[in-house]
This record gives sequence, structure tokens and C-alpha cells, in this order.
Amino acid sequence: MSERKQVKVFKGLIIDTPTSNQIRFRDSFIGVENGSIIFIENTLPKEYSESDVVVLKRGEFLFPGLIDCHLHAPQYAFIGTAFGKPLLEWLEATVHNFEPKCADKNYSEKLYNQVVRKTLQNGTTTASYFGTIHTDSDIILANICEKRHQRAFIGKVNQDQMFPDNLKENADKSIQETIRFIESFKGYHFVKPIITPRFAVSCTRDLMKKLGQLAQERDVFLQTHLSESPGECDLIKSMYPECKNYTDVYEQYDCLTDKTLLAHSIHLSDEEMDVIKKHESSLIHCPNANLTMKSGFCPVKRALSKGIKMGMGTDIAGGFSASILDSMRLGLIVGNINDIVNKTEPVSLSEIIYLATNGGAHCLNMQDQIGSFEVGKKFDALRVDLNANDSPIDLFEWNGNEQMVERFILQGDSRVIKEVYVEGSLVDTSI
Amino acid sequence: MSERKQVKVFKGLIIDTPTSNQIRFRDSFIGVENGSIIFIENTLPKEYSESDVVVLKRGEFLFPGLIDCHLHAPQYAFIGTAFGKPLLEWLEATVHNFEPKCADKNYSEKLYNQVVRKTLQNGTTTASYFGTIHTDSDIILANICEKRHQRAFIGKVNQDQMFPDNLKENADKSIQETIRFIESFKGYHFVKPIITPRFAVSCTRDLMKKLGQLAQERDVFLQTHLSESPGECDLIKSMYPECKNYTDVYEQYDCLTDKTLLAHSIHLSDEEMDVIKKHESSLIHCPNANLTMKSGFCPVKRALSKGIKMGMGTDIAGGFSASILDSMRLGLIVGNINDIVNKTEPVSLSEIIYLATNGGAHCLNMQDQIGSFEVGKKFDALRVDLNANDSPIDLFEWNGNEQMVERFILQGDSRVIKEVYVEGSLVDTSI
Repeated sequence: MSERKQVKVFKGLIIDTPTSNQIRFRDSFIGVENGSIIFIENTLPKEYSESDVVVLKRGEFLFPGLIDCHLHAPQYAFIGTAFGKPLLEWLEATVHNFEPKCADKNYSEKLYNQVVRKTLQNGTTTASYFGTIHTDSDIILANICEKRHQRAFIGKVNQDQMFPDNLKENADKSIQETIRFIESFKGYHFVKPIITPRFAVSCTRDLMKKLGQLAQERDVFLQTHLSESPGECDLIKSMYPECKNYTDVYEQYDCLTDKTLLAHSIHLSDEEMDVIKKHESSLIHCPNANLTMKSGFCPVKRALSKGIKMGMGTDIAGGFSASILDSMRLGLIVGNINDIVNKTEPVSLSEIIYLATNGGAHCLNMQDQIGSFEVGKKFDALRVDLNANDSPIDLFEWNGNEQMVERFILQGDSRVIKEVYVEGSLVDTSI
Repeated sequence: MSERKQVKVFKGLIIDTPTSNQIRFRDSFIGVENGSIIFIENTLPKEYSESDVVVLKRGEFLFPGLIDCHLHAPQYAFIGTAFGKPLLEWLEATVHNFEPKCADKNYSEKLYNQVVRKTLQNGTTTASYFGTIHTDSDIILANICEKRHQRAFIGKVNQDQMFPDNLKENADKSIQETIRFIESFKGYHFVKPIITPRFAVSCTRDLMKKLGQLAQERDVFLQTHLSESPGECDLIKSMYPECKNYTDVYEQYDCLTDKTLLAHSIHLSDEEMDVIKKHESSLIHCPNANLTMKSGFCPVKRALSKGIKMGMGTDIAGGFSASILDSMRLGLIVGNINDIVNKTEPVSLSEIIYLATNGGAHCLNMQDQIGSFEVGKKFDALRVDLNANDSPIDLFEWNGNEQMVERFILQGDSRVIKEVYVEGSLVDTSI
């Protein structure tokens, strides 16, 4: 009987996307033991009693924890400001002023607690963060995620050119610090290091190549930016005459593997997409930032049709929202814009949910653990309640499962995310 | 001394847009008596004592009540559903099923209470509503707005073709009912009737012309839809061979005056804009609906540069949000899209705030009463608190006035709208 106490059982609507083309609705019993899902059944297995079951009311459902595959923790300091500046101007106006402050560990600790709390409140159970060049502050971020039970990939940022002195290191120091950073990841359960050359504009060829090789030697993930803004793409052309295109830069300098996350990836030729597919690298869609910074419209349907792995990112603070629900909403809108402008089929609701959950899990090679509800996967889940106190949504009697999930994506925010679970444990989002 | 009790005095940050090119920040005392602003001063006038003053804390400010110049009250029943369907398909999928229900006054009363509560919670102090063809239910909506102190223009919808039988009347009946509707507006303080030919597709020439003339005879406002979707524009071309363009339809059939609100107005030639300007009619920008239904991108800067009056609309339920803050956010994004696609200058923060406040007031010919804070205007105001409990915004120490208003527009929602005032009285948004 003592074993049974570890089992948590919910009964009610469970929504997820096993594939990008299907929103799955199950009205089931789901059992969780030691953080993992042990059954999903239409009837309660005999060994459990009805009194053990948490029954979800109408308007409530379980939804996979949201996966934010691209955000910058230090940039939370200026989220929601500097709207409309294009990337290169924006970097100067914001990043140049704020990221140097992260040399101060007290400053970083306070700020990083804020961004982790806010993303957890918004249902982000897994995140891939850019930190800054300041290794010790990046380690603080890792400790905060570990302590608060947010799964996270944490990146010590590498850049040895373009940025002012207080935001760059020479290539040797950058590599040494990256090795020190990776080696500090001992005893963590929820967090992992990710190698983070900021982008090809800010890294010398030498640094990029060494980082790519280090990622492969140590078998860790690597994240960077690709083809975000037209101005940046022009700069890359002039900086890398030996490369065919922007994607080719990363290929030539050993940064493309099946553990690479490429944020933005807007202005890509078919040839570039084919290279990304060949390496099984992932494309991270950040619609808020792309609309806010006038970068362009990510060709999501084209990438999906080529079978490229895709996830979503808030891109704090290029994006002004800490919520992946906002990313999904704006992702749907970018799909419509692509339809209006380029006559490409718009992205569907199931595709956008998939990107924010199961798709992101595939990008992070965690598809066997998170992203949907399957026996054997971890229970990373949101308990959504559309009838929550102060809910922005008036649920109507006629609303069935389809309307509930559509309205959650279009109208929901942290007010309807009643509980956040990571590996079966309730996360305290109030602190 | 008894007179003094009627005076309410606030001290703190006051934000508004006297023109579309200026966000004005004042740190002042503002006094309100009998619903009107009687002073805005840097020092407290001698006749008042400091103890009478409500002092706003850091993070708090007064903002003009928001003006929603285009929304459909009956469509709140299906808000946040049917994303991505183009206008004509969408009408069949949603409006055809739901608007007939408003023949039932009990149904309408419940629904209209919900939409008025939700828009008030989101800071909409003035709204221009489409009802349905059902006059008695439209009167119920008027009564609800009056009782709850939401300023409103209420439209009994007119349509005598295109729609199914349970959503149309013949032209004579439509006119008679409109006259009965207008004549029922006695003793109201906050609400007014507005004549509402749905759009040129749904009205015969006879009906449109009579409605236009009725509006002019009775000196009331008129609202309709103009040039929303490409499919609709094609239909208009084939339906009205005698007209030069869509705008010309309304001009020929007497619907364009300085009291006309034209919702959407996306696909307009310069010639059409010049006609709208000539009549001093207003263009209502509904970015959420236009992106959601793939209608297109309203050319806001072009219209503003011609001096056309402009306001904003949520366009419930073409738009999925009941918040004019969402309209402002998406309006900024549409400005960026116009920059990317058409190389037109993006709309500015001050312009978008102006549209949602003072611009809307001009559209409704209420610029002497609402839309900004001036001595003699009514006190229709939001008390915003970015540090409210459960605020989606973490305010940072470095955030000054500019950042506070930018973050309010980009990240705010009803949680930071702490108090809503209409004509000096606090509105109860909880019921």
C-alpha cells in the first residue's frame, strides 16, 4: 500500500499531439508514479480506488508542459521595450547595455529567478536558454532551473568579435570557459549544458569550428541563430565569401549536427533547408521576435514538408512575451501572413501545438521523455482550467474539446494554467 | 465643504496622446467633479487638502479609457473559435448559426451581460456595437450598457439579402424596425443608436439608400464594413457594376458622412481614401480580425497621412480578443508587416495609442468629451498598476515613463487595469 501512495491518478480530458497532424483528445484515467506515466486507460485499473483519483471538471484538461527552445535569460531585463528596431540596431540599443551587467552575480541571480518564475507561470516546463559570456552567472541560472525543477539547456554565450570589449572574450578564453562550464554540470537532474556560439557574425571562424568540434566530442547540444534579419544575412555574405550561404557557414565550421538548434531560420533557400535536414538539425520558430523586429516570416510549412525538426521559442527579449501560448498564437498568425503574402498553406492548429510540445521535444532529443502523454514518458504537464478565477475566457456550453483547445491557444494565459507539473511533481510558481 | 466631497483628486503619472505624434507624460494633480476634469496642475490648488488626494505609486498611471469602435456583441458566443477561415466562409460557419439565437431575449441578455463585463474588464469605456436584426435584443444590449456605465453606440443590424431567412428582413420591415429602435432611445445617458447596414453585400440598394438618408435625417451615426477581404471585394465588383469601387457603393447610396464608421478598410485605392476623407468618414482598424481571417493588412500610415479619422476595433468575434490592448499590439505588428511587405513606414507607438483613445473619440465625434485628459473633458480613465497582484509584468527599476507605457501596451491585460472610470464613477467590473 505504501507504493500506491506514490501514484497520482487523474481522470479527465487529456490533450496532446502525437503527430503534427493530429490533436488527440482522450477522456481517460492517467496514472503517474515516480514522475513517469504508468497507465492511460479508459477504466480505472483494479488496483486503484476511485478515492485516489483527481477528477477534472468541465473546462479542465491536461496539456503537455510547454517547451521554449529559444530565449535569452539576461534579456528579461528589457523585455517589452525597444519595439520595432531591426536586429542589428536592436542589439546595440539593448544587449550592449544590459548583458554586461551579468558580470555581477547578485544582479544575475535576481534576474534569473525572475525569468524562470515567469516562464514557469506561463507553463514552460523545458527551456533552452542563452546566458551571457559570464560563466559563473550562467552557472547560477543552471542552479536556479535545477532548484525550481524547470528542465533547461543552459548556454554560456561565445562571442569573440563584433561586440564591445565587455561582451567578448578572445577565442582561447571562450573555449576554456566553455569547457569549465560544461565540466561544472555534475549532479544535475533537470539541466544540461548547451554550447552557444551566439551567431556567425559574432564568432571568428576559429572559435566557431572549435565550439562545433567540442560539442561533438562532448556529445552536447549546440544552439545559435540562423538567417534572422535581412541586414544580418547581407553581413554574413560579405563576412564569409568562402561560403555558399548562411547555412553553409555553420556547415563548414562544424556546427550542424542532429543536436543543433537554429533559431529563427527565416530567409532560407530550399538548398539550405536540405542541408539542415541532412544533418537532422532543428529549426526554432520565434514568431513574436520576427514580427517585432521586422525580420520576416518563417516558412514553417515549407520546413515541415521537408521533414525538418521544429520547435518554438519566445526569444525573450526579441519577443516581448514570456509565454509560449503567445508564440503559438503568433505562429498561427505568421502562417496566415505566409498565406496572404506567399500563397503558402497556413500552419494548422495541430502543427502549432505540436511545435510547442512534441516537436520541441524532438528538437531536444527528449521525445521519449516529454512532449506528449504516453506510458513511459515523464509527466511534464499543465493542468489547465478555462473556468479558473479571473480567467480571460468565458467558456460557453456549446464548447466541446476542439473549442476548448482552440480557445486555450488563442485566448489563454497564465491565469488558466492552474498547476504545472515537471516529472510528476507540482512546481511552486508563486515564488 | 459639501461641494468639495464631490471632487476626486489623483496625483501621479498621467499618460495620453493629445495628437497622434505625441505621447504626453504629466506628473500632476488631476481633479474630477461631477464626472468632468476640473483641473490638471503641477501643484495642488489651494482649496484642496493633501488628505483628499489619491496618490499613485510607482508603476501606476492614469490612461484614457479605451475606445472599441467595432465589435459584434452577439458574436461573443463564438469568440476564439474558427481561426483562419476567410470572411465569407466564416460568416456561414459561425454567424449563420449563432446570430439567430438572439431572437431569444433571455439568451441575448445573458450573452450581452458577458460581453459588456469582459470589455469593461479590459478597459473599454466606449464601444460601438453591432447587435443583430432582433430589435428587442438590441434594446436589451443598450439597457445593459446604460446600467453598467459603458458608453456605447448600439446598432440594430440591417440586412435584406445574402443571409438565410432567419437572419434577414425585407427592406420595409428593416426600416420600420430601425425607426422603432432609434425612437426607443429616450432617457439614456451613456448610449446612443447607430444605424447599421451590415455591409453592401447583405443590403439591397433600396435598403442602403434609405438607411443612409435616415441617418442623415435623424442626425445619428452609421456603421458598416468596407473592403475587408479579397473575396468580398470581388463580390462587390460583380454586384455593383454601376459603382467605380467599393467605397463608391457607399457614396452612391448615401452612407458616407462625417458620422460614418467604416470597419476594416484594407484594400483601398488612394482615390477611395480621398472620397472617405472628403466626407470626413472614419476608418476603423481591426488588426486581430484581419490577421485571423487572412483579410490583409490595413494601410494605416497611408490613411493617417491623408488625415483620415481612424479608430481601433477588436471586431469580436472576427478577432479572438476582447481587449483593445491586443488590438494595439497587433496594430503595431501590422505596421511592421506593412514595412516588411510594402516598405511603408511602420505605425508608431503614439499613433497606435492615439487610434485606441483620442482617435476613436474623434471618429465618434466625442473628442470634446473623451479620449485624453483635458480640463472640461469627462473623466473616462483607467487606473493602471503594472505592479498589480498577478501582474504579467515584472517592472524593472530602470523603467521610466516611456518603458511603462510601452510595456503596458505590449504586455498588459486586464490584470493591470486596476480601476475603470466612466464619467468620474468607478465601474464595477466584477459583476
